[in-house]
Amino acid sequence: MSRIDDVYAKLQIKTGAKLVLVVLDGLGDVAMREQGWMTPLEAATTPNLDGLVSQGCAQGRMIPVVPGITPGSGPGHLALFGYDPIEFEVGRGVIEALGLGIELTSGDVAARANFCTLNDQGVVTDRRAGRIATEVCERLCGILSAKIKKIGTTAVQIVPGKEHRFVVVFRGTGLEGPLSDTDPNREGFPIAVAKPVDPKNEGQKKMAKLIADFYKVALPLLKAEKTANGFLMRGVAHQPEIPTFEQRYGLKAAALAVYPMYKGLSQLVGMVKIEGPSTIREQFERYAKEYSNYDYFFIHFKYTDKAGEDGNFEAKKKAIEEFDAALPILLARKPDVLAITGDHSTPCSLKGHSWHPQPVLLHSAASGSDKLCRFTETGANHGSLGIFEAKYLIRLMQAHGKMFDKFGA
Amino acid sequence: MSRIDDVYAKLQIKTGAKLVLVVLDGLGDVAMREQGWMTPLEAATTPNLDGLVSQGCAQGRMIPVVPGITPGSGPGHLALFGYDPIEFEVGRGVIEALGLGIELTSGDVAARANFCTLNDQGVVTDRRAGRIATEVCERLCGILSAKIKKIGTTAVQIVPGKEHRFVVVFRGTGLEGPLSDTDPNREGFPIAVAKPVDPKNEGQKKMAKLIADFYKVALPLLKAEKTANGFLMRGVAHQPEIPTFEQRYGLKAAALAVYPMYKGLSQLVGMVKIEGPSTIREQFERYAKEYSNYDYFFIHFKYTDKAGEDGNFEAKKKAIEEFDAALPILLARKPDVLAITGDHSTPCSLKGHSWHPQPVLLHSAASGSDKLCRFTETGANHGSLGIFEAKYLIRLMQAHGKMFDKFGA
Repeated sequence: MSRIDDVYAKLQIKTGAKLVLVVLDGLGDVAMREQGWMTPLEAATTPNLDGLVSQGCAQGRMIPVVPGITPGSGPGHLALFGYDPIEFEVGRGVIEALGLGIELTSGDVAARANFCTLNDQGVVTDRRAGRIATEVCERLCGILSAKIKKIGTTAVQIVPGKEHRFVVVFRGTGLEGPLSDTDPNREGFPIAVAKPVDPKNEGQKKMAKLIADFYKVALPLLKAEKTANGFLMRGVAHQPEIPTFEQRYGLKAAALAVYPMYKGLSQLVGMVKIEGPSTIREQFERYAKEYSNYDYFFIHFKYTDKAGEDGNFEAKKKAIEEFDAALPILLARKPDVLAITGDHSTPCSLKGHSWHPQPVLLHSAASGSDKLCRFTETGANHGSLGIFEAKYLIRLMQAHGKMFDKFGA
Repeated sequence: MSRIDDVYAKLQIKTGAKLVLVVLDGLGDVAMREQGWMTPLEAATTPNLDGLVSQGCAQGRMIPVVPGITPGSGPGHLALFGYDPIEFEVGRGVIEALGLGIELTSGDVAARANFCTLNDQGVVTDRRAGRIATEVCERLCGILSAKIKKIGTTAVQIVPGKEHRFVVVFRGTGLEGPLSDTDPNREGFPIAVAKPVDPKNEGQKKMAKLIADFYKVALPLLKAEKTANGFLMRGVAHQPEIPTFEQRYGLKAAALAVYPMYKGLSQLVGMVKIEGPSTIREQFERYAKEYSNYDYFFIHFKYTDKAGEDGNFEAKKKAIEEFDAALPILLARKPDVLAITGDHSTPCSLKGHSWHPQPVLLHSAASGSDKLCRFTETGANHGSLGIFEAKYLIRLMQAHGKMFDKFGA
């Protein structure tokens, strides 16, 4: 824990204020000439957001990690939850495993995997095996699970995900990540060898050997398959030690997320996963019902990011409008502190995550007004929050919830 | 000293430029709906500030400590003086003692105290003893001083302040703060026991015993009093080691402050206290007279904070206007570098200090223009200084005074 975290911890008090974080995944964007120099957020019709802004909001932009660095969903969300993403590195395998409901214990190593197609020479010809159906994935994971319970003394757990995706968890002693991926990242290359990121790390060396052994027993089991006759592994990492939300902030937190990765991220910091809702409207309705049961709500909306990844300006605009239409359900419950933002930008023009600071809006009785009419990237540039590192967002939310004593006399 | 401080120190040069810092205490505010979404600074009529802005100013906002943290006056001012308030923590007792003109030496422990009213059961019924007159406080401190010169081998000094306030200084060996307060912070509770903040610290344990012994001899001496028959102690702390302004910046600094706390803070960093003036106009006049005698002037104006603490929007506006009316006296002397800001925000809506970044204005031959018409919170959001930590203000002032060599070739 840093010196500054220590100051925050010492000043922390309980006030019973309710904090709500709505993450429109990949919300931030970059104005496009073809769209009259607009961003999807600027082009969207958002009467309810506009109304919220007129009630008094503070706006700004957040640097997801450090300037110029594009985060994955993991670091993006850890920062929003107040965990320095450079201090707390979490492998994707761990996050995926958590998202599938696998209970990891400290020291477990998890890897994301996906079925792929190999030709006779062992060259990857389709990195996603034609996106096989989830049922096929389940059948193949069943075959692997039935035959591979252990490698040496290390227990192996194989859990199917959606379509071509699955997760492999290794539980033994002295295992450590991270390793390099076996995914060559392009078709036309063979499966790569997983190597220790730190060549001197004994745990990583042991783990690299295990992955190689796993391939040796697993690949022959898939030989009969036509498309999904191989698999690639990524984000091989061990479960790090992370203080929970309750330990760190004294807040009882709940997560309303639909996608496994975000459920996993919330579980990693000890949030309670509220299952059931599948649309943003249902998520807000459920939040309203659970309002009195938690101090902090994390509500995750995926479709802004999806549209950005597809480079689909119109779809991203529509996703924002879908969120806006549901917003009154959230606002009716009048949370004490509401933050609406993204975990990063996913500009349509880049068709992927980016480093551009995402816009953030903060609404509370203490937020005042930045005298802006709407919530947009350009407007946020003029806001009272300025541009700050995303890891401070929760500190501002706590401050707006009056959750800090005065520092010094 | 941090790595960055080291860089600054190495590049520092003397140029004879005059730097002036005007602190409108608690200046920053939050726009209020009831006031047409205005802040007091926005609502105030400030022709002279407006004129200064039109002469070319850089504006921005400053984070007093770290995002979300509300500072007391101590950390707020230390930051303005360029001392990282997290690195240099100063107890309130020390600041109050300095403010009363007590010359502390390293190792002295000081505590703020105030007379209170106790009932027969020893329960605090009035934490301020009905705000007794200063003369009564002086008489009572006289009684205590006459009887208590020492506790064991530790010398005790009791110095009256204004109304119900006084300061107790302990000079001995091996004494350390901080201790917890004996003030229960609410009526209806007995005087609390002062405890070591670090239970393993021997100096603090010794000090806690001394405070208990002090109560044993002092309380009986007040038995005959009707209202001021007890006292509460707060901010028990020892004088920390702080490099002086001259050591750190090579600047001969003077302070023009009316209230003890701010005199104390300036003395703590080795500024010369210029006594006499009691209004902002008199402070500016005196500054003009002393102009050639110092390199740096700290001019403190209290009434913006007072009004904010009272939640009195109109009074805060009027205080700003009082400052504005006197401003031409300051400007007539054309300081090379002028900074006008607060030590933190004291929003009328919150009736207390807050974490909201305070607006800052910097005027020099190098400040250029942000093309703003006025100095306001909302305007400052658009300024060229952006939002930065208050501890960097003096570095910007030094830079505008051409006081740094180029870094690297």
